[in-house]
Amino acid sequence: MSEATPDESGAPLLRLMGLIHQQVSSELMRRLAAAGFTDTRMAHNAVFPHVPSEGIRLVDLAARAGMTKQAMSELVVDLEALGYLRRRPDPSDGRAKLIEFTKRGWSSVEVSLVSFAAIEAELADDIGAGRMRELRRTLLDLVAATSP
Amino acid sequence: MSEATPDESGAPLLRLMGLIHQQVSSELMRRLAAAGFTDTRMAHNAVFPHVPSEGIRLVDLAARAGMTKQAMSELVVDLEALGYLRRRPDPSDGRAKLIEFTKRGWSSVEVSLVSFAAIEAELADDIGAGRMRELRRTLLDLVAATSP
Repeated sequence: MSEATPDESGAPLLRLMGLIHQQVSSELMRRLAAAGFTDTRMAHNAVFPHVPSEGIRLVDLAARAGMTKQAMSELVVDLEALGYLRRRPDPSDGRAKLIEFTKRGWSSVEVSLVSFAAIEAELADDIGAGRMRELRRTLLDLVAATSP
Repeated sequence: MSEATPDESGAPLLRLMGLIHQQVSSELMRRLAAAGFTDTRMAHNAVFPHVPSEGIRLVDLAARAGMTKQAMSELVVDLEALGYLRRRPDPSDGRAKLIEFTKRGWSSVEVSLVSFAAIEAELADDIGAGRMRELRRTLLDLVAATSP
Protein backbone atom coordinates (compact mmCIF):
# COMPACT_ATOMS: atom_id res chain seq x y z
CA MET A 1 0.00 0.00 0.00
CA SER A 2 1.34 3.42 -0.84
CA GLU A 3 1.94 6.07 1.78
CA ALA A 4 1.18 9.40 0.16
CA THR A 5 3.87 11.83 1.26
CA PRO A 6 2.53 14.89 3.06
CA ASP A 7 2.80 17.36 0.17
CA GLU A 8 2.56 16.12 -3.40
CA SER A 9 1.39 19.43 -4.86
CA GLY A 10 4.63 19.99 -6.79
CA ALA A 11 5.12 16.34 -7.77
CA PRO A 12 5.50 15.37 -11.44
CA LEU A 13 2.21 14.35 -13.09
CA LEU A 14 3.80 10.95 -13.68
CA ARG A 15 4.19 10.53 -9.93
CA LEU A 16 0.58 11.59 -9.24
CA MET A 17 -0.73 9.21 -11.90
CA GLY A 18 1.52 6.48 -10.49
CA LEU A 19 0.10 6.99 -7.00
CA ILE A 20 -3.51 6.91 -8.18
CA HIS A 21 -2.77 3.93 -10.42
CA GLN A 22 -1.27 2.05 -7.49
CA GLN A 23 -4.13 2.86 -5.13
CA VAL A 24 -6.86 2.02 -7.67
CA SER A 25 -4.99 -1.22 -8.48
CA SER A 26 -4.95 -2.12 -4.78
CA GLU A 27 -8.68 -1.49 -4.57
CA LEU A 28 -9.18 -3.66 -7.66
CA MET A 29 -7.15 -6.46 -6.00
CA ARG A 30 -9.38 -6.25 -2.92
CA ARG A 31 -12.51 -6.50 -5.06
CA LEU A 32 -11.12 -9.40 -7.11
CA ALA A 33 -10.21 -11.21 -3.88
CA ALA A 34 -13.72 -10.62 -2.53
CA ALA A 35 -15.07 -12.23 -5.75
CA GLY A 36 -12.89 -15.30 -5.21
CA PHE A 37 -9.92 -14.32 -7.37
CA THR A 38 -7.36 -14.43 -4.58
CA ASP A 39 -4.45 -15.60 -6.69
CA THR A 40 -3.87 -12.61 -8.99
CA ARG A 41 -1.10 -10.13 -8.36
CA MET A 42 -0.71 -6.50 -9.39
CA ALA A 43 1.80 -7.54 -12.05
CA HIS A 44 -1.00 -9.47 -13.76
CA ASN A 45 -2.83 -6.20 -14.39
CA ALA A 46 0.04 -5.36 -16.68
CA VAL A 47 -0.94 -8.35 -18.85
CA PHE A 48 -4.75 -8.62 -18.90
CA PRO A 49 -5.59 -5.32 -20.64
CA HIS A 50 -3.37 -6.32 -23.55
CA VAL A 51 -4.86 -9.76 -24.34
CA PRO A 52 -7.43 -9.42 -27.18
CA SER A 53 -10.36 -11.82 -27.49
CA GLU A 54 -8.83 -13.45 -30.59
CA GLY A 55 -5.55 -14.24 -28.77
CA ILE A 56 -2.09 -12.81 -29.33
CA ARG A 57 1.50 -14.00 -29.78
CA LEU A 58 3.95 -13.60 -26.92
CA VAL A 59 6.19 -11.18 -28.80
CA ASP A 60 3.22 -8.92 -29.65
CA LEU A 61 1.84 -9.12 -26.10
CA ALA A 62 5.22 -8.05 -24.71
CA ALA A 63 5.40 -5.13 -27.15
CA ARG A 64 1.89 -3.95 -26.26
CA ALA A 65 2.65 -4.03 -22.55
CA GLY A 66 6.03 -2.35 -23.01
CA MET A 67 7.87 -5.28 -21.44
CA THR A 68 10.70 -7.53 -22.53
CA LYS A 69 9.66 -10.86 -24.06
CA GLN A 70 11.40 -12.61 -21.14
CA ALA A 71 9.47 -10.66 -18.46
CA MET A 72 6.16 -11.23 -20.25
CA SER A 73 6.94 -14.92 -20.70
CA GLU A 74 7.35 -15.33 -16.94
CA LEU A 75 4.00 -13.63 -16.25
CA VAL A 76 2.23 -15.74 -18.91
CA VAL A 77 3.65 -18.99 -17.49
CA ASP A 78 2.42 -17.86 -14.06
CA LEU A 79 -1.06 -16.99 -15.37
CA GLU A 80 -1.30 -20.26 -17.30
CA ALA A 81 -0.52 -22.20 -14.13
CA LEU A 82 -3.19 -20.22 -12.28
CA GLY A 83 -5.72 -21.03 -15.01
CA TYR A 84 -6.30 -17.50 -16.37
CA LEU A 85 -4.54 -17.86 -19.72
CA ARG A 86 -3.91 -20.73 -22.15
CA ARG A 87 -1.97 -21.21 -25.40
CA ARG A 88 -3.32 -22.67 -28.62
CA PRO A 89 -1.70 -23.12 -32.04
CA ASP A 90 -1.88 -20.00 -34.21
CA PRO A 91 -4.17 -20.97 -37.15
CA SER A 92 -2.06 -18.76 -39.45
CA ASP A 93 1.20 -20.50 -38.43
CA GLY A 94 1.10 -23.96 -36.85
CA ARG A 95 4.50 -23.53 -35.19
CA ALA A 96 3.43 -20.33 -33.40
CA LYS A 97 1.14 -20.09 -30.34
CA LEU A 98 -1.58 -17.63 -29.50
CA ILE A 99 -2.16 -16.67 -25.86
CA GLU A 100 -5.80 -16.25 -24.90
CA PHE A 101 -8.06 -16.08 -21.83
CA THR A 102 -9.60 -19.19 -20.33
CA LYS A 103 -13.18 -19.05 -19.04
CA ARG A 104 -11.77 -18.25 -15.60
CA GLY A 105 -9.67 -15.50 -17.18
CA TRP A 106 -12.76 -13.95 -18.78
CA SER A 107 -14.63 -14.12 -15.47
CA SER A 108 -11.84 -12.17 -13.78
CA VAL A 109 -11.88 -9.59 -16.57
CA GLU A 110 -15.62 -9.17 -16.07
CA VAL A 111 -15.17 -8.65 -12.32
CA SER A 112 -12.40 -6.15 -13.07
CA LEU A 113 -14.60 -4.11 -15.41
CA VAL A 114 -17.48 -4.05 -12.93
CA SER A 115 -15.01 -3.06 -10.20
CA PHE A 116 -13.55 -0.22 -12.29
CA ALA A 117 -17.04 1.14 -12.87
CA ALA A 118 -17.78 0.99 -9.13
CA ILE A 119 -14.47 2.64 -8.22
CA GLU A 120 -15.00 5.41 -10.75
CA ALA A 121 -18.53 5.99 -9.46
CA GLU A 122 -17.09 6.40 -5.94
CA LEU A 123 -14.45 8.82 -7.18
CA ALA A 124 -17.15 10.80 -8.99
CA ASP A 125 -18.94 11.07 -5.63
CA ASP A 126 -15.71 12.49 -4.18
CA ILE A 127 -14.73 15.04 -6.82
CA GLY A 128 -17.91 15.47 -8.89
CA ALA A 129 -19.15 13.82 -12.08
CA GLY A 130 -18.27 16.86 -14.20
CA ARG A 131 -14.63 16.81 -13.15
CA MET A 132 -14.47 13.05 -13.77
CA ARG A 133 -15.80 13.58 -17.32
CA GLU A 134 -13.27 16.36 -17.89
CA LEU A 135 -10.52 14.11 -16.50
CA ARG A 136 -11.46 11.38 -18.99
CA ARG A 137 -11.40 13.87 -21.89
CA THR A 138 -7.99 15.19 -20.81
CA LEU A 139 -6.54 11.70 -20.34
CA LEU A 140 -7.79 10.61 -23.78
CA ASP A 141 -6.15 13.68 -25.33
CA LEU A 142 -2.91 12.89 -23.47
CA VAL A 143 -3.01 9.26 -24.63
CA ALA A 144 -3.24 10.58 -28.20
CA ALA A 145 -0.53 13.21 -27.61
CA THR A 146 1.93 10.73 -26.10
CA SER A 147 1.28 7.83 -28.50
CA PRO A 148 4.37 6.83 -30.43
CA MET B 1 6.31 0.76 -26.60
CA SER B 2 2.57 0.60 -26.17
CA GLU B 3 0.22 0.36 -29.12
CA ALA B 4 -2.85 2.39 -28.26
CA THR B 5 -5.85 0.40 -29.38
CA PRO B 6 -8.03 2.23 -31.92
CA ASP B 7 -10.76 3.35 -29.51
CA GLU B 8 -9.97 3.87 -25.84
CA SER B 9 -12.86 6.27 -25.21
CA GLY B 10 -14.72 3.78 -23.02
CA ALA B 11 -11.62 2.40 -21.30
CA PRO B 12 -11.32 2.46 -17.51
CA LEU B 13 -9.50 5.53 -16.18
CA LEU B 14 -6.93 3.13 -14.73
CA ARG B 15 -6.16 1.91 -18.25
CA LEU B 16 -5.85 5.47 -19.60
CA MET B 17 -3.55 6.47 -16.74
CA GLY B 18 -1.56 3.28 -17.28
CA LEU B 19 -1.10 4.08 -20.99
CA ILE B 20 0.02 7.65 -20.31
CA HIS B 21 2.25 6.48 -17.47
CA GLN B 22 3.92 3.95 -19.74
CA GLN B 23 4.42 6.41 -22.58
CA VAL B 24 5.78 9.18 -20.33
CA SER B 25 8.06 6.61 -18.66
CA SER B 26 9.41 5.60 -22.09
CA GLU B 27 10.09 9.24 -22.91
CA LEU B 28 11.85 9.63 -19.54
CA MET B 29 14.02 6.57 -20.33
CA ARG B 30 14.99 8.14 -23.67
CA ARG B 31 15.98 11.40 -21.95
CA LEU B 32 17.92 9.61 -19.21
CA ALA B 33 19.76 7.60 -21.88
CA ALA B 34 20.58 10.81 -23.76
CA ALA B 35 22.06 12.18 -20.49
CA GLY B 36 24.30 9.13 -20.13
CA PHE B 37 22.08 7.04 -17.83
CA THR B 38 21.75 4.11 -20.20
CA ASP B 39 21.57 1.43 -17.53
CA THR B 40 18.26 2.20 -15.83
CA ARG B 41 15.12 0.24 -16.58
CA MET B 42 11.46 1.16 -16.24
CA ALA B 43 11.22 -1.00 -13.13
CA HIS B 44 13.69 1.36 -11.45
CA ASN B 45 11.15 4.17 -11.73
CA ALA B 46 9.09 2.17 -9.27
CA VAL B 47 11.90 2.60 -6.71
CA PHE B 48 13.40 6.08 -7.10
CA PRO B 49 10.34 8.18 -6.16
CA HIS B 50 10.11 6.33 -2.86
CA VAL B 51 13.70 6.84 -1.60
CA PRO B 52 13.80 9.86 0.76
CA SER B 53 16.98 11.92 1.19
CA GLU B 54 17.51 10.57 4.72
CA GLY B 55 17.43 6.96 3.50
CA ILE B 56 14.86 4.24 4.21
CA ARG B 57 14.74 0.63 5.34
CA LEU B 58 13.97 -2.08 2.79
CA VAL B 59 10.68 -3.09 4.43
CA ASP B 60 9.45 0.52 4.42
CA LEU B 61 10.61 1.09 0.84
CA ALA B 62 8.71 -2.00 -0.29
CA ALA B 63 5.56 -0.83 1.53
CA ARG B 64 5.75 2.65 -0.02
CA ALA B 65 6.12 1.22 -3.51
CA GLY B 66 3.36 -1.35 -2.98
CA MET B 67 5.73 -4.26 -3.67
CA THR B 68 6.73 -7.37 -1.81
CA LYS B 69 9.95 -7.12 0.20
CA GLN B 70 11.44 -9.81 -2.07
CA ALA B 71 10.66 -7.94 -5.30
CA MET B 72 12.01 -4.67 -3.88
CA SER B 73 15.12 -6.42 -2.59
CA GLU B 74 15.93 -7.62 -6.11
CA LEU B 75 15.56 -4.11 -7.55
CA VAL B 76 17.71 -2.59 -4.78
CA VAL B 77 20.48 -5.16 -5.32
CA ASP B 78 20.34 -4.32 -9.03
CA LEU B 79 20.48 -0.55 -8.39
CA GLU B 80 23.33 -0.94 -5.89
CA ALA B 81 25.34 -2.88 -8.48
CA LEU B 82 24.66 -0.12 -11.03
CA GLY B 83 25.85 2.51 -8.53
CA TYR B 84 22.55 4.37 -8.00
CA LEU B 85 21.82 3.24 -4.44
CA ARG B 86 23.92 2.22 -1.42
CA ARG B 87 23.23 0.86 2.08
CA ARG B 88 24.57 2.30 5.32
CA PRO B 89 23.93 1.27 8.95
CA ASP B 90 20.77 2.80 10.43
CA PRO B 91 21.98 5.19 13.19
CA SER B 92 18.88 4.31 15.25
CA ASP B 93 19.58 0.54 15.02
CA GLY B 94 23.07 -0.69 14.14
CA ARG B 95 21.77 -4.06 12.91
CA ALA B 96 19.44 -2.42 10.38
CA LYS B 97 20.42 -0.79 7.07
CA LEU B 98 19.17 2.35 5.40
CA ILE B 99 19.00 2.50 1.60
CA GLU B 100 19.96 5.86 0.10
CA PHE B 101 21.01 7.45 -3.19
CA THR B 102 24.63 7.67 -4.24
CA LYS B 103 25.88 10.83 -5.98
CA ARG B 104 25.16 9.10 -9.30
CA GLY B 105 21.68 8.27 -8.02
CA TRP B 106 21.01 11.93 -7.18
CA SER B 107 22.29 13.00 -10.61
CA SER B 108 19.81 10.67 -12.27
CA VAL B 109 17.00 12.02 -10.06
CA GLU B 110 17.91 15.55 -11.12
CA VAL B 111 17.84 14.59 -14.81
CA SER B 112 14.46 12.90 -14.22
CA LEU B 113 12.95 16.01 -12.63
CA VAL B 114 14.22 18.26 -15.44
CA SER B 115 12.87 15.73 -17.97
CA PHE B 116 9.44 15.63 -16.29
CA ALA B 117 9.25 19.41 -16.45
CA ALA B 118 10.17 19.36 -20.16
CA ILE B 119 7.65 16.59 -20.93
CA GLU B 120 4.88 18.42 -19.07
CA ALA B 121 5.70 21.64 -20.92
CA GLU B 122 5.34 19.76 -24.22
CA LEU B 123 2.02 18.26 -23.12
CA ALA B 124 0.83 21.73 -22.11
CA ASP B 125 1.63 22.84 -25.67
CA ASP B 126 -0.57 19.98 -26.91
CA ILE B 127 -3.64 20.36 -24.71
CA GLY B 128 -3.26 23.85 -23.21
CA ALA B 129 -1.75 25.10 -19.95
CA GLY B 130 -5.16 25.62 -18.36
CA ARG B 131 -6.19 22.00 -18.87
CA MET B 132 -2.82 20.83 -17.53
CA ARG B 133 -3.35 22.90 -14.35
CA GLU B 134 -6.88 21.50 -13.99
CA LEU B 135 -5.51 17.97 -14.54
CA ARG B 136 -2.97 18.51 -11.74
CA ARG B 137 -5.72 19.74 -9.37
CA THR B 138 -7.95 16.77 -10.20
CA LEU B 139 -5.11 14.26 -9.81
CA LEU B 140 -4.13 15.76 -6.43
CA ASP B 141 -7.77 15.46 -5.28
CA LEU B 142 -7.86 11.84 -6.50
CA VAL B 143 -4.60 11.04 -4.69
CA ALA B 144 -6.24 12.35 -1.50
CA ALA B 145 -9.51 10.50 -2.21
CA THR B 146 -7.81 7.18 -2.87
CA SER B 147 -5.21 7.34 -0.07
CA PRO B 148 -5.56 4.49 2.39
